[in-house]
Amino acid sequence: MADLVPLPRIILEPLLRTALLEDFGLAGDLTSSAVIPKDLHAATILAARQPGVIAGIEIARLAFELCSPEIELDVRQTDGSPVSKGDIIAAVSGPAHGILAGERTALNFLCHLSGIATATATFVAAVRGYKTRISCTRKTTPGLRAIEKYAVRAGGGINHRFGLADAILIKDNHIAMAGGIRNAMRHVRRNLGHLVKIEVEVDALDQLEEALRYGPDAVLLDNMPPEEMQRAVMLVAGRAMVEASGGVTLETAPAIAAAGVDVISVGWLTHSAPNLDIALDFNEFQGEGWLL
Amino acid sequence: MADLVPLPRIILEPLLRTALLEDFGLAGDLTSSAVIPKDLHAATILAARQPGVIAGIEIARLAFELCSPEIELDVRQTDGSPVSKGDIIAAVSGPAHGILAGERTALNFLCHLSGIATATATFVAAVRGYKTRISCTRKTTPGLRAIEKYAVRAGGGINHRFGLADAILIKDNHIAMAGGIRNAMRHVRRNLGHLVKIEVEVDALDQLEEALRYGPDAVLLDNMPPEEMQRAVMLVAGRAMVEASGGVTLETAPAIAAAGVDVISVGWLTHSAPNLDIALDFNEFQGEGWLL
Amino acid sequence: MADLVPLPRIILEPLLRTALLEDFGLAGDLTSSAVIPKDLHAATILAARQPGVIAGIEIARLAFELCSPEIELDVRQTDGSPVSKGDIIAAVSGPAHGILAGERTALNFLCHLSGIATATATFVAAVRGYKTRISCTRKTTPGLRAIEKYAVRAGGGINHRFGLADAILIKDNHIAMAGGIRNAMRHVRRNLGHLVKIEVEVDALDQLEEALRYGPDAVLLDNMPPEEMQRAVMLVAGRAMVEASGGVTLETAPAIAAAGVDVISVGWLTHSAPNLDIALDFNEFQGEGWLL
Amino acid sequence: MADLVPLPRIILEPLLRTALLEDFGLAGDLTSSAVIPKDLHAATILAARQPGVIAGIEIARLAFELCSPEIELDVRQTDGSPVSKGDIIAAVSGPAHGILAGERTALNFLCHLSGIATATATFVAAVRGYKTRISCTRKTTPGLRAIEKYAVRAGGGINHRFGLADAILIKDNHIAMAGGIRNAMRHVRRNLGHLVKIEVEVDALDQLEEALRYGPDAVLLDNMPPEEMQRAVMLVAGRAMVEASGGVTLETAPAIAAAGVDVISVGWLTHSAPNLDIALDFNEFQGEGWLL
Amino acid sequence: MADLVPLPRIILEPLLRTALLEDFGLAGDLTSSAVIPKDLHAATILAARQPGVIAGIEIARLAFELCSPEIELDVRQTDGSPVSKGDIIAAVSGPAHGILAGERTALNFLCHLSGIATATATFVAAVRGYKTRISCTRKTTPGLRAIEKYAVRAGGGINHRFGLADAILIKDNHIAMAGGIRNAMRHVRRNLGHLVKIEVEVDALDQLEEALRYGPDAVLLDNMPPEEMQRAVMLVAGRAMVEASGGVTLETAPAIAAAGVDVISVGWLTHSAPNLDIALDFNEFQGEGWLL
Amino acid sequence: MADLVPLPRIILEPLLRTALLEDFGLAGDLTSSAVIPKDLHAATILAARQPGVIAGIEIARLAFELCSPEIELDVRQTDGSPVSKGDIIAAVSGPAHGILAGERTALNFLCHLSGIATATATFVAAVRGYKTRISCTRKTTPGLRAIEKYAVRAGGGINHRFGLADAILIKDNHIAMAGGIRNAMRHVRRNLGHLVKIEVEVDALDQLEEALRYGPDAVLLDNMPPEEMQRAVMLVAGRAMVEASGGVTLETAPAIAAAGVDVISVGWLTHSAPNLDIALDFNEFQGEGWLL
Repeated sequence: MADLVPLPRIILEPLLRTALLEDFGLAGDLTSSAVIPKDLHAATILAARQPGVIAGIEIARLAFELCSPEIELDVRQTDGSPVSKGDIIAAVSGPAHGILAGERTALNFLCHLSGIATATATFVAAVRGYKTRISCTRKTTPGLRAIEKYAVRAGGGINHRFGLADAILIKDNHIAMAGGIRNAMRHVRRNLGHLVKIEVEVDALDQLEEALRYGPDAVLLDNMPPEEMQRAVMLVAGRAMVEASGGVTLETAPAIAAAGVDVISVGWLTHSAPNLDIALDFNEFQGEGWLL
Repeated sequence: MADLVPLPRIILEPLLRTALLEDFGLAGDLTSSAVIPKDLHAATILAARQPGVIAGIEIARLAFELCSPEIELDVRQTDGSPVSKGDIIAAVSGPAHGILAGERTALNFLCHLSGIATATATFVAAVRGYKTRISCTRKTTPGLRAIEKYAVRAGGGINHRFGLADAILIKDNHIAMAGGIRNAMRHVRRNLGHLVKIEVEVDALDQLEEALRYGPDAVLLDNMPPEEMQRAVMLVAGRAMVEASGGVTLETAPAIAAAGVDVISVGWLTHSAPNLDIALDFNEFQGEGWLL
Repeated sequence: MADLVPLPRIILEPLLRTALLEDFGLAGDLTSSAVIPKDLHAATILAARQPGVIAGIEIARLAFELCSPEIELDVRQTDGSPVSKGDIIAAVSGPAHGILAGERTALNFLCHLSGIATATATFVAAVRGYKTRISCTRKTTPGLRAIEKYAVRAGGGINHRFGLADAILIKDNHIAMAGGIRNAMRHVRRNLGHLVKIEVEVDALDQLEEALRYGPDAVLLDNMPPEEMQRAVMLVAGRAMVEASGGVTLETAPAIAAAGVDVISVGWLTHSAPNLDIALDFNEFQGEGWLL
Repeated sequence: MADLVPLPRIILEPLLRTALLEDFGLAGDLTSSAVIPKDLHAATILAARQPGVIAGIEIARLAFELCSPEIELDVRQTDGSPVSKGDIIAAVSGPAHGILAGERTALNFLCHLSGIATATATFVAAVRGYKTRISCTRKTTPGLRAIEKYAVRAGGGINHRFGLADAILIKDNHIAMAGGIRNAMRHVRRNLGHLVKIEVEVDALDQLEEALRYGPDAVLLDNMPPEEMQRAVMLVAGRAMVEASGGVTLETAPAIAAAGVDVISVGWLTHSAPNLDIALDFNEFQGEGWLL
Repeated sequence: MADLVPLPRIILEPLLRTALLEDFGLAGDLTSSAVIPKDLHAATILAARQPGVIAGIEIARLAFELCSPEIELDVRQTDGSPVSKGDIIAAVSGPAHGILAGERTALNFLCHLSGIATATATFVAAVRGYKTRISCTRKTTPGLRAIEKYAVRAGGGINHRFGLADAILIKDNHIAMAGGIRNAMRHVRRNLGHLVKIEVEVDALDQLEEALRYGPDAVLLDNMPPEEMQRAVMLVAGRAMVEASGGVTLETAPAIAAAGVDVISVGWLTHSAPNLDIALDFNEFQGEGWLL
Repeated sequence: MADLVPLPRIILEPLLRTALLEDFGLAGDLTSSAVIPKDLHAATILAARQPGVIAGIEIARLAFELCSPEIELDVRQTDGSPVSKGDIIAAVSGPAHGILAGERTALNFLCHLSGIATATATFVAAVRGYKTRISCTRKTTPGLRAIEKYAVRAGGGINHRFGLADAILIKDNHIAMAGGIRNAMRHVRRNLGHLVKIEVEVDALDQLEEALRYGPDAVLLDNMPPEEMQRAVMLVAGRAMVEASGGVTLETAPAIAAAGVDVISVGWLTHSAPNLDIALDFNEFQGEGWLL
């Protein structure tokens, strides 16, 4: 994962502007404006307070840059790197006003995304030794899907579809409303772009058998017990990717992987993984303020 | 909490438009467009799958309305209501295309905010019997601060400042950079608006004593052991609100409340509380589609 | 195509607001404001002035609605319908001010999109009898990709990927920079989402042979003569979708289709197809203006 | 045209951000992210593949800059310059990731605008020798009016009004609804800003005669045969600018110019002119990637 | 002025959303949320507290509508109407929460615009009896130009150009940089759209004479004494519109009008006119709140 | 005031972009584009034409920077500085096109904000010698609240609450709707954040007495005569901040201050203070234009 390419600034910048404006209100940082001398420089350290996997360094950097272009980051980790408690992620130095203005926003992004990357890495570790990949879902935090999906990649996972428009996922309700799998597949195929994959959700083996008749690219086994999954994988026999989903936990993941599925998708990664604890510690201040 | 006033639509609508666009990409719901007859109506139930406290019903309603103004919600709960597993939150009926388009976005908001409300309510319950209130912090999800703070209120908590501009919070770094509490308070008072409160963070009793000399509205006890907090509360003797902060958990909260603090602030409520599991179940379809 | 589902209003509305603001400047319709009595109602007819295929009726409707919610459209066609010269698309009636304010914007969208749908339908007709589908490319008008891709679907075509993020397309430059197809495919596969398709561009049969070794979902034959395409199709032998691209015209399309390719992609559909001529004719005015 | 001043970046940047976001979706360039080494630099050539007139170089430059500020353009042409097939427009070099991310967007703008400039120049050439100027209309692509009008200027044409608010154009429907030209002109004059011009559309000589009585700045001859136009021009006798409009083609333009009109306006320039074929050719790659 | 057409909602709505969000912050109306029963209805009166001319009623209406679509306005005046102290502008009734949320924003717009309309009307009255019109300038409040120009029209004035792009105004610096009026006019004419007017600023009679040689549509007499203006008007002799500008006050306006100029432009109208005092008085509350 | 910290660029930039776009329309500066040689440089002086207090220098700087990053400002004053007629605020030099494009927007901001700062400083001077502070209100220009509140600070005043969400202000209507002060205070206290202040508006001494029973942080004396204010201040006896409001003028302010109130709030500062007259004078042009 050492060479994960950061998301384009065009995608990140609007998220950061929104977040900074949300924190600045109509007056910016009242406390620092009153208390901190104008030209004070500070040297700070961004460090992990618990072990995990980092994601969002470029976003944190951009948060500081948008507060003051004079802030410099000496980055010591890359997105996707595992860190231990106490590891330095970056040294951040520059105008104290800018660092204080950007601190909370930078950390809110970085801790949230690193939390997702860490959660993903934990699941990836849980299925190590199997070919099974860990995937996210569309259960993401509103407004943050692009960066949360990125954090999943940073944690070693893969991405499920990005939204409703980049793949076909025929679920139980679609099948019911379309009057059966056959009908649904027939309609889907009618005007399908040649670069769109089709996945069909099934919750029983006979339904799986029916689905396979229509050549989906992937099948989603919904809430099946591992032994049934194993039979499902054998039934598929390589004709489609096999995804397992539904309340998967770190405890249940290995057995599911052992059942031979290609992908385990875990909504929890993006909707409920806790933040990774990362802090900004101020080391030194220098300047010609009135105070020092 | 039965009479919590929902946030103005002016605040909510942009969040929903962003979230829906994120999910729709450049083509909207490819699967439903292909599979679901145009005029099919569906009747669905929004129900809790685990006990908790609900927040975000109006946001969920707006998600559906923005997908189709013909969707109707028969709402059975109000924000701030406790629900049991299986409780119906709302009956949602209308064009199947609209319901399917809005489903994930509505749930992403509702589960996230109800998770925060539930977490808050759990902390509130943990300190019941004491005067202590539970508060959030600025450790919120970027872009969602308004609604996360609202969810905290729905859970029975109170809100800390909304951002850098609506209260003064003098922390350790400010004190260091300003050259001491006295200097910091003097600068802050110089041009302070008369409706802005001042809080000072202290981590030791002597620092607290010094801070109290300058008449802050509140003091923030940072990471103090409960017995020291108790001494701090006695030292303050009602001259300021007393807030306790720093890694508070459900286990440690009661002792902190017993120490007599006015407010316990918990970052975890907004940065790491897990989603509340809420689902949309499709009951019935009606229409003149080609399929039924 | 009679049941093409229109794009969600969430996608369309921002495009219309931008377009209307662009036309309104800082004062709106100076001429009508000065000349047309306030309460005048007008009855108008939206009609085709040349044969073609319609796309964008809902967008036109929304343009008028945003100018005045009292405007009513009695729509006589659906997107994807072929029309002859003189065919009525809709009767538009309501406040004259609103109709005049929205007229140009509604037509600019409708004529542009119908032009694309018509162009697509012409290509679709040119390959009728073959299994070959007509596809667009990413050569779309900046800002209008969602609706131009929709217009291609209205014309009976299919959509190529919507952007850089919803499919892998390994082109000649990628291959060169990655150090060969093998390297490129190896890197791509490493963290690939299971719902993302991979297409590889090739311009010679030996390159095709190499590409097929790595199991792409599709191959893009770039600027090959039809006879070479035929050999390529036989070489592929159903192992991948086959797309042909590169300066295809109505004249050359049938031979390419005859070569057995699955998809012909045509940039011209979205970057250079001429508008379809559609006009709004005013029939009647009624009102208590000062003038009538 | 050598000294055409580019539009302000304030106008261009939002168009580019929209276009890039449209292409990037939620993950940016999936293919390049997977395949191209992070630090690879590329040297490319932006070249015309057919003769025409260039417009939009600054926009193309900005597209690349927004993808990576390290990309450098050595620009060899200026907007408004005629180019031959094969002429180099600019050498573009810098990070390969940035160039690939911006390539399609830069070309989509540049080819579209150069298409309009080329079309305009062709009409300008068709009326060379006459005083007649070629003008665009309000039949522009939604969202792109500012840059399309600029492209018309680059091609040697002039701009009709930019929208509904910067000039008065009294058309047939206005006249009908106002109860005649006299009424319309009377109302228009009532509160007219002194820097707003008035044009009246007429389709017959007697109507022209009536219009001239009220001193319009310009008259628009709608769909008149050239001989009638000539009589119209003589009737006007320099009292107003004379514009001819209505389905003008390259074939009919010279005769219309010969009739003595001041301006010929051509909707086709902006609504249907085909793209100019311009391509980006990759010459060289350098870097310490894993691949080279 | 009784039939002034309000600006399109497309123009007004973004201004109102921005203003409401600015007032709502991240929590909306804290006070009302806590204090006012949810279903309380209120009946209020919007009334003038001083004589003046009203502008912005539709904007005020929209402010309330955006806070609650159930609020109803019974409007008693139209934009451009003169009012006396105590005159009712509208009766506003509906949900108390919505009325309180929108009150300040509605008034901030209405008082500001009515202040401009009143100021304009005062100047219009000062030159009554002369043909002279009163015009605004580009010295408007940033972001509010569209509605401030509208308010000037409501007050009986006319609008100068809306911005840099809808007319040519050659000022002293342009002349200096272009190397003289002749050069400037020659360059301007080169590619001028036929619906763009040209005005030249002059500050002396010989300069006026030179300018007139090149046929400008208007001349701007900058800071001339009235007697020199009179000579200027005679020199122009109807060949161009004559505008007077530069520190004009209510006291000096009549003499300037008497000098025969067509237009007096007054920056003060939009940059410094004081608000008109308008208030919202609450009459009655009804509801099933806990309190009544 | 010498060390007033400017507002963050994140807050300022959107205001400037909106204002510049408003002025640029769809073509930018038509006049300069036609008349000024491309590479001309100009040296100009931003100078006060009347005495006052400056606010908005950073905004003016940003206006020029957004027009051309090559423009340089040699700033001679800081926000909050008093200036005399003729004082130089900054020397502005760089590309003539950029300076002309930004001139009006820079001045519109600077003159407006300096007008507010000057007005504030005048009130501050009027109460010099008393402890009384001068405050603004929520009667601000829509969209400009952040910078208008900043200008008040630059003038030596303090800020009232920024909007509806950062403090509680219980006015007469709230009291009436809540069924009395007691009820209102009880509801407000129920879920109040510990960093939110409460102010109660009263218009009589008995109401003040009642209000004080519930411990508000501040009381607002609405339109009281000075002698009653004095009694009110004595009644309060330091238990709350005392604010006076209601039609305060420079003439009445000293007596109100003498009555002992802590704060006088003046809506006029932001809704009606006239612009400060500041101008940009062009000194010199240099370049290789065709003209010089």
